[in-house]
Order: sequence, then structure tokens, then C-alpha cells
Amino acid sequence: MSPRAVVLLSGGLDSTTVLAIASREFDCFALTVAYGQRHAIEIDAARRVAAEMQAREHKVVSVDLSSIGGSALTDSIEVPKDRSEMAGIPVTYVPARNTVMLAIALGYAETLQADDIFVGVNAVDYSGYPDCRPEFVDAFESLANLATKRAVEGHRIAIHAPLIRLTKVEIIRRGLEMGVDYGITRSCYDPNPRGQACGRCDSCLIRKRAFAELGMADPAPYADD
Amino acid sequence: MSPRAVVLLSGGLDSTTVLAIASREFDCFALTVAYGQRHAIEIDAARRVAAEMQAREHKVVSVDLSSIGGSALTDSIEVPKDRSEMAGIPVTYVPARNTVMLAIALGYAETLQADDIFVGVNAVDYSGYPDCRPEFVDAFESLANLATKRAVEGHRIAIHAPLIRLTKVEIIRRGLEMGVDYGITRSCYDPNPRGQACGRCDSCLIRKRAFAELGMADPAPYADD
Repeated sequence: MSPRAVVLLSGGLDSTTVLAIASREFDCFALTVAYGQRHAIEIDAARRVAAEMQAREHKVVSVDLSSIGGSALTDSIEVPKDRSEMAGIPVTYVPARNTVMLAIALGYAETLQADDIFVGVNAVDYSGYPDCRPEFVDAFESLANLATKRAVEGHRIAIHAPLIRLTKVEIIRRGLEMGVDYGITRSCYDPNPRGQACGRCDSCLIRKRAFAELGMADPAPYADD
Repeated sequence: MSPRAVVLLSGGLDSTTVLAIASREFDCFALTVAYGQRHAIEIDAARRVAAEMQAREHKVVSVDLSSIGGSALTDSIEVPKDRSEMAGIPVTYVPARNTVMLAIALGYAETLQADDIFVGVNAVDYSGYPDCRPEFVDAFESLANLATKRAVEGHRIAIHAPLIRLTKVEIIRRGLEMGVDYGITRSCYDPNPRGQACGRCDSCLIRKRAFAELGMADPAPYADD
């Protein structure tokens, strides 16, 4: 019997690759935090991915971060398109999002008696979010080892961020080697009601560029396909 | 104009005292995290307290921790009564609760451009929760200073836990000096549908004992009054 792990799953390219990596050694419990995203499409993608990749369980926990505002992903602020320079922290940054998601994952892990949490943060081809950096992940791991009954009882909690130093090209290559079907993943910040990616937000641009570098078409559906 | 602060407010004795302390120096934005408590009474108490103490704003953010289970406060596990020995971490412990609440407070603070967060955790007359200890609060402060755009831009985030080393008697004395009306606060883990405290859970026992030591009757309504 493999040990249990909690895997944060958005249904995007990165977290799907992480689920594939974690599944090789762990009995995986996927967790999607629905933080008031403007589109339910991301949650649908997470459900498909969890089913396809045979996660043991898939929990969707809602927390309404849109009620505190502050982001193009939760508010009515427009998602920027066709940016050629991705400098600075963009309006798609959601205040404290990864802190909230990891905190809920920590609670879920404790109820499962799991000591391992996987998250798909990435500090290379990312959009400049502070909570995607290695020092953030390390600080959360330190906190986790003080925060729970399980840690106090002597278990060592580990936060795994296996993609943190990989480029998007390396992530996709790794996923393809493991047989990940990227056609069912969704990474777009602003998909249309039919679930097609916009192809023009930062997330789409980074993803499309990586598939192009690999000489492949991105198998996910785009609005302009 | 005073600087802004976020104050985590459950409507209990401790967080109400913290709101009184914070209000002396800060423009206070109260935040109640509704984490799937079995009773909405706690949220009603928080609303009364926020109004009475003139918090500038009071946000209630829901996160359904009951869906991940693991606690007498979110599940159908029975709340223990009349415990004379309060050794070990009890079943009322909610996995990662304070981590989740502080994470949401951090996001809210960022949207308000506030650098100060107040929380009523207490390591003396507490029930043995790991996430009420000074080292937990310090670790969260370190995390907060890596997690947000605001911190990256040079602001220093402070997590204030002004009650952490006080006994319950000292907390009440401090609150009374500031004119806190403890009659509108609720600390019970298992109140009845009329909003009366049970008088027998750990939280009630600690509170009643403290008022007794001060030679006072607890002004909150109890089921056996």
C-alpha cells in the first residue's frame, strides 16, 4: 500500500503533471480549491483530470476569495491579453491564493493521516507571483510542521513542488513521458463559456509557446482553433 | 487617519478583546471565517460584536472545512463535556484552522493595503491546540512576508497575537478595563439553538472559571441560567 498524499489540482497543465509525478509513489487524494474563480470550467477540468488519472478521491472545497477582492481572476477586472513583456506582478495575482490553498491542503492531509502535499508552483515560466517561489514553499513547510496535531505528534510534513525549477518545456516533456493527456487540461485565465482557452492571456501565451518549442500543437481546445 | 488592520473575529471572548485592543491604534476591518461550524450562532455573535465595537467593515468568508472532516466542531463527533483534566489535543481541534483563517486574513489585508493582522490565539488557558503557540504565529509571520505582492514590494506584514501569553483572567481584566461587554460574546463549542452556551464544554469551563476567579458572574447567557 502506497503512502497517501494530497495533490492540489487546478486542472491546468502544471498541476496535472504534478498529479502524474505524485501517482508514481503515492496514493493520491486530489484537492481543488474553488476560490471564486469567474469560470467553473477550471473545476470541470480538474474533475476530468482526477477521474482520468485515477486519483483515489477528489475533493472540491470552496472559499470565496472574490468577497475580499483584489484580482482579475476573482473580480470584474479585465484579464490582460497579448502582453509581450510580462514584467511585474500582474492583475491576475490573487492575494494569498497559494497560502490559502496550501492551508486547506494541510487540513485535508491531516484528516487523511497523510504527510505529503504536492503543489504545482513554478518559479521559471511563471507570471511573477510571489507565492510561487522556493522560499515561499520552504516557509510553508516550516509552518506546516508547527501547525498541526499530526506534526506535534512527531510526523514530518513535506511540501513537494516538483516543478518549481523546471521550464514549461521541461514540464510538458516530463508529462508526455508519463503519458499525460494535455488535451483534457485547461490553463486559461479567461476561457469562453464553451470551455475553450482564449489563447491570449499570459497563461495561454506561455503554454502555447512551450508546445511550439517542442514542435507540437497544444492539444487543448482554443477559441481560435 | 489610523492605519488599517484586519482583526480575526469569532465573536468569542478572546477575539472580542483583541478587537478592543486593536481599535485603540488601528482602523479595524473584522473578518469572520465561517469554516462549516455546526452552529451559525458564532457568526451572529461576531456580527453583534463588530457592530457594537464599530469595526469599519465586517466580512464573513465561508470555507467548508467540514467537507474535509476531522473535528468535533465541523463533524458529527460529540463535543466532550465536564472534562476535569484537559490533557492532550482534544477532538474539538479543527485541522489547520488557524492556518486557513490567517491565510484568508492575509489576502484580505492585502486588498485593504493593511500590514497588520490581529488574532486572538492564546497559549496559556487554551485547549492544547498546536496552532495557538507563539512559534506558530512567528512562522506564519515569516510566511506572510514571502507570500504576498505587498510584502515583495517592501511592506512588512505583522501578525499580532496580543493575548498569546495572558491567562483567561488577565484577558478578561484587560477587556473590562477597555469597556468590553462580554455579555454579547459567545465562546461555547456546543450552544443550543437559542444561542445559549452549554456551560460544560472546555471553552465554557475555562471561561466560567475565569469569571469566578474575578468574583463575577459571566454575563453571557447559559443554558442552565
